[in-house]
Amino acid sequence: MVIIMADLPKAAVVRLAKKAGAERVGEDAADALVAKAEAYIEAIAVEAFELAKHAGRKTIKAEDVDLATK
Amino acid sequence: MVIIMADLPKAAVVRLAKKAGAERVGEDAADALVAKAEAYIEAIAVEAFELAKHAGRKTIKAEDVDLATK
Repeated sequence: MVIIMADLPKAAVVRLAKKAGAERVGEDAADALVAKAEAYIEAIAVEAFELAKHAGRKTIKAEDVDLATK
Repeated sequence: MVIIMADLPKAAVVRLAKKAGAERVGEDAADALVAKAEAYIEAIAVEAFELAKHAGRKTIKAEDVDLATK
């Protein structure tokens, strides 16, 4: 048996959406939210890692994340 | 005892960042990534819920999420 683990747990993403005021979140919308959030995190990580390397590091720091999202 | 559960698990966010190519992610960077991702999800959810209401619904659908991120 192969277990494929989704990276972001859907329940956590839906919980955040409801905390933000969404009354109900459809199953398809939950999937879409997870996909968008994952793409966002990956895009920031790519940019932040570039910035870390530019600063002579291999470890991303918070300042790289902050600069990547400016 | 009060247990406060963070909405997005840090380990999952770091796993995504590494999948995107980040070699090492500092603890402070992981916290920053989680915070940014949560803010992003909440912002999309707010916008998507507005779009759902505009379409006469209380349930967010994938099309609302897609439109919210356009």
